[in-house]
Amino acid sequence: MNYTHHAALANDLEQRVAALAASITKTDEHFAAQAKERYDELVKPQGSLGGLEQLGCQLAAIARTCPPPVSNRATVVVCAGDHGVLAQGVSPWPQEITAAMVHAFCADKAAVSVLAETVAADVVVLDVGVASDLPPDPRLRTAKVRAGTRDLSREPALTREEAAQALLAGADLATELFRSTDIVIGGDMGIGNTTAGACLISAFTGLPATQTTGRGTGIDDTTRKRKTALVQAALDLHQPNPSDPLGAIACFGGLEHAALCGLYLAATRAKTPVILDGLAANAAALAAAAFSPHIRGYLIAGHRSTEPGASGALTKLNLHPLLDLDLRLGEGTGALLALPLVRAAAATLADMGTIAELTR
Amino acid sequence: MNYTHHAALANDLEQRVAALAASITKTDEHFAAQAKERYDELVKPQGSLGGLEQLGCQLAAIARTCPPPVSNRATVVVCAGDHGVLAQGVSPWPQEITAAMVHAFCADKAAVSVLAETVAADVVVLDVGVASDLPPDPRLRTAKVRAGTRDLSREPALTREEAAQALLAGADLATELFRSTDIVIGGDMGIGNTTAGACLISAFTGLPATQTTGRGTGIDDTTRKRKTALVQAALDLHQPNPSDPLGAIACFGGLEHAALCGLYLAATRAKTPVILDGLAANAAALAAAAFSPHIRGYLIAGHRSTEPGASGALTKLNLHPLLDLDLRLGEGTGALLALPLVRAAAATLADMGTIAELTR
Repeated sequence: MNYTHHAALANDLEQRVAALAASITKTDEHFAAQAKERYDELVKPQGSLGGLEQLGCQLAAIARTCPPPVSNRATVVVCAGDHGVLAQGVSPWPQEITAAMVHAFCADKAAVSVLAETVAADVVVLDVGVASDLPPDPRLRTAKVRAGTRDLSREPALTREEAAQALLAGADLATELFRSTDIVIGGDMGIGNTTAGACLISAFTGLPATQTTGRGTGIDDTTRKRKTALVQAALDLHQPNPSDPLGAIACFGGLEHAALCGLYLAATRAKTPVILDGLAANAAALAAAAFSPHIRGYLIAGHRSTEPGASGALTKLNLHPLLDLDLRLGEGTGALLALPLVRAAAATLADMGTIAELTR
Repeated sequence: MNYTHHAALANDLEQRVAALAASITKTDEHFAAQAKERYDELVKPQGSLGGLEQLGCQLAAIARTCPPPVSNRATVVVCAGDHGVLAQGVSPWPQEITAAMVHAFCADKAAVSVLAETVAADVVVLDVGVASDLPPDPRLRTAKVRAGTRDLSREPALTREEAAQALLAGADLATELFRSTDIVIGGDMGIGNTTAGACLISAFTGLPATQTTGRGTGIDDTTRKRKTALVQAALDLHQPNPSDPLGAIACFGGLEHAALCGLYLAATRAKTPVILDGLAANAAALAAAAFSPHIRGYLIAGHRSTEPGASGALTKLNLHPLLDLDLRLGEGTGALLALPLVRAAAATLADMGTIAELTR
């Protein structure tokens, strides 16, 4: 491929991303108001379902209908990728764990597998950048952009083209899944990805590395100090532009963050709710919100991760988490735990009787 | 019935209550430690499931086995009763609403009905003291002790015998249900019952009425002020003894609080978890904890109600709620919303693979 071809392809990919972002429309608050009115008519004191009522109103605004549909058929997509920055010793776990965890997802043995089963959700794994080749599996979709990102502490983790490719892989898979599922939940797997996540959150919120860098899978104080310094140095090196989300993703990766971002954009275009998981999801949501100002109304914070960057991202997005259970696992686990609440909010609007019916 | 007979019956009932309380044994922390060890072996960073791991450890200690059983078959028992104190204008709703809501429960139209459906739980209504006669219904169990309590602001709401009768009705129903269900969740319905609930919470925590009396179904400032003064006056009038829980329940009612307390004692005796709902449940849990010091280990705070007394009770019981969604509906709704988390905690222990298996 010569340079002209390459540039044309990159341009085409970027145009597809731009078209996706441009296709997203604002949630319709008219239906939120309709839901609020309905809640006030149901057999209960007004407002007594608290946060569940706010959630139901949001779901109506997202679906542009009241009652909103109950998301019975759910699919969690675990986006997986590796990270060149792992060479800098930011995690106690070796890179091979990413592939091993994909194996666990395919064998129904991971936390996300078990939690998905408890809420009747399907699990799909999307390999956008695992370092090694993975054996085929019915649960596994392969759209490997490259075998792990470059080391973000030394150079851009991805080209813009690679970032766009991973983003579109997430979007295309979500769009395909919506043919047979009501809600797509994003999850992440990638040893080293809290480093990239912290960089992205700093890039979009302006927070310093000290406020976005955490212990990830459980590093000690010395490693955390080094990780924080690395994140700050990477921010200083790349000088990401928060209003160019594709550029920011290219600076830091990861490929799974790009795929998650695309998945959120596609879910939003499909007028479905986006239940966010932890740090990686929060970082990808900030990127999605930079692509389109209309994203915010579709976002539901499933939980608040213990990672400090997660709280920074939720504050920036003005989201209040449904759960606050000190989780820090990822994979989509926290979002899956919140799914029953989302279903419950829609179900109360759909199935409760009204006071008028009761006293008739 | 002459006085001697009556006293003998009362004595017999109190002895049954005392025997129930005495049959309760402490949870076994050995199994909590075993669960913690197992969590540390599962395919995830240690401790990364946060509060869910703590919950799983508690479930193992309750069931005396690891992994603990997943509570797939669930039944919510909505205990219903009326309140003589309603004559003092503590609620904007008329007494007839209690019976009307029982009708809504039987017709599957209430919030508890809809939320139960979303988590595959059955609903049973226990009438221990609704003021009017209720038409028979497959969902309705009748164990009416009396047609509503006496006015707690003027006299004891119940005799000790009546309190014991309602308590045992809750315990007997729970015990019967355990033949075909894994977990029994308590809910409440009773117009005026946040007044009795505030009295009970003050009685067991020592908190003044100002810290336990809330807006209930949504009263205005003037009514709340009157309600608070009434609760304080009732506490001053009856001088309840917190180490005599049956006496405290007799002072204030309600019959549904007594039934809930009995239900919790029976669930605890059956070595099953007790997921608490809001204010009424919190008040009943304080009473149950006064009956047996071993109750505490079985309690799971499903959520934190917006009623101030709920926070006071949870603090006294040293419980951290799973959900904090500004609910104030009762009926068992908040406990049902927390049920998927309890199931998820048990399922992760039962079904996740270990790191050793993964890297074999």
